[in-house]
Amino acid sequence: MPPAASPPSEGRTHSLSILRVDADGISARSDAVATEEPLEIQVSFERNRVRVIKPVSITMRTPGDDRELAVGFLFTEGILREAAQIEACDATASAAPGRSVRGDTVRVTLRAGADVDLRTLDRHFYTTSSCGVCGKTSLEALRLSDRIALEPDLPVVDPAILRSLPALLRARQAVFDQTGGLHAAGLFDARGELVAIREDVGRHNAVDKLIGAQLLAGRSSLAGHILLVSGRASFELMQKSLMAGIPILAAVGAPSSLAVDLARQFGGTLLGFVGERRLNIYAGAHRVRAAAFARAESPAFVVRSR
Amino acid sequence: MPPAASPPSEGRTHSLSILRVDADGISARSDAVATEEPLEIQVSFERNRVRVIKPVSITMRTPGDDRELAVGFLFTEGILREAAQIEACDATASAAPGRSVRGDTVRVTLRAGADVDLRTLDRHFYTTSSCGVCGKTSLEALRLSDRIALEPDLPVVDPAILRSLPALLRARQAVFDQTGGLHAAGLFDARGELVAIREDVGRHNAVDKLIGAQLLAGRSSLAGHILLVSGRASFELMQKSLMAGIPILAAVGAPSSLAVDLARQFGGTLLGFVGERRLNIYAGAHRVRAAAFARAESPAFVVRSR
Repeated sequence: MPPAASPPSEGRTHSLSILRVDADGISARSDAVATEEPLEIQVSFERNRVRVIKPVSITMRTPGDDRELAVGFLFTEGILREAAQIEACDATASAAPGRSVRGDTVRVTLRAGADVDLRTLDRHFYTTSSCGVCGKTSLEALRLSDRIALEPDLPVVDPAILRSLPALLRARQAVFDQTGGLHAAGLFDARGELVAIREDVGRHNAVDKLIGAQLLAGRSSLAGHILLVSGRASFELMQKSLMAGIPILAAVGAPSSLAVDLARQFGGTLLGFVGERRLNIYAGAHRVRAAAFARAESPAFVVRSR
Repeated sequence: MPPAASPPSEGRTHSLSILRVDADGISARSDAVATEEPLEIQVSFERNRVRVIKPVSITMRTPGDDRELAVGFLFTEGILREAAQIEACDATASAAPGRSVRGDTVRVTLRAGADVDLRTLDRHFYTTSSCGVCGKTSLEALRLSDRIALEPDLPVVDPAILRSLPALLRARQAVFDQTGGLHAAGLFDARGELVAIREDVGRHNAVDKLIGAQLLAGRSSLAGHILLVSGRASFELMQKSLMAGIPILAAVGAPSSLAVDLARQFGGTLLGFVGERRLNIYAGAHRVRAAAFARAESPAFVVRSR
């Protein structure tokens, strides 16, 4: 598959008039900011032969790739198990009159008889752990663990390849990001080839778009791949990566304690502060070639409270 | 009030064993990561003379200042109108056996007869716009607008003061942040004096902790203040700032389109890319001294889609 850049889309940035204050004084100029707008994700499914439509999440996202976002979200949240369960995926834009904010919706229609996890869906809808950004990060989220199954020992990647990835991501991102306000997520194969990139004001959305696009393209497994995120690695991103079967999550920034916990618990590899000169291995060192030798000497990977 | 740093707290960072790969090869070392753990926020209130306890949100946060976080969240979400409505605020830590993740809870008990906005509370609980991180960013959130009332013209701050704030924040943050993984939010007065700082893996949590602490300290109005955040300015942070009556939100990073929209709609001042050498004014230029003169010449502040 050739490297696919985020498809250009209208509405991804806004142009506006601002004032800049610097050493030369004050000047009016035009500036671009990343667009942030709400998207409602709905699921339509059959229960007892009655078709039910449920809103599952409202997320603030950068418009574009909305179907991919919805599918990726439902998949990494454990509601959807495979692309074959999807009958239709419809995006509607509703510009409410008199409102500056558009109310876009994506409805994912599941096939009759699709084995949707209703418990997970209900949890998303009814309880406080109900929505896109923090819902799945609740204590309950760990119940999704029966879905997580990585190949235990693959891939093994050379550290030089891993350190080269952020520059590759930035090179592609620079084309699309004139705003300084977009997070990027890139999917790479084990040789360091870029498979796809997505950008969004929300890091979790960029990851969902990336994973959803792969699912919709018919790729059911992302084993053997590396997910690179432009910022920090939270529990949420680690969970999404594991749910998608991606064995290696690499972050340009720092990981959180819970991201490390989760990676160690489920055998994922978590890398932080990945840059040209170094990288830190927080979990799953056996997938980094140089570290495979050092593993025996390294202390047990147990999180200790300070 | 003297500058208050985030109080030291156990559990704010985790120490763990990692492997570092760099030019010298591979080495085992100890590293600190920011702690990320779930906190459930509950509200206890009377309805028809019956006391009801409702979970409102589960947020992934860095432990510490949990009461402040809960109170700040309820306030900036429009559920709580003033500190006087609070009868008690109890934090309980429940280390579930066999679980690596603790389940901490803060319950905010409202006085009998407290004029809690039940519609807002119900919305938080029942609908998809139900939780901490994305719920309030739904289309419905704009309904909170009846709460937003800023002094239209105050304060007017010198740009040199504004540009000095990030360095002041970093200087305080450096003491607490050995992890590279914590966001900071600082509250300053119009002379650039630091009032308080809070840190968290979630930027919204840092802001809620900051605002909640002020409320609990008996400060009902934050008029005349500046809120500085270490990263980007989203809709969510702009909303929290406006709900707390803070007239100026300054971000070290970029703003989103919806943050700019919201600031312009409600007369807030939004500054982006604030640094030693420059700052950008996205809304409310009349509160920046130098810009007050340039205002007449600057184009109307209307967001245009590209």
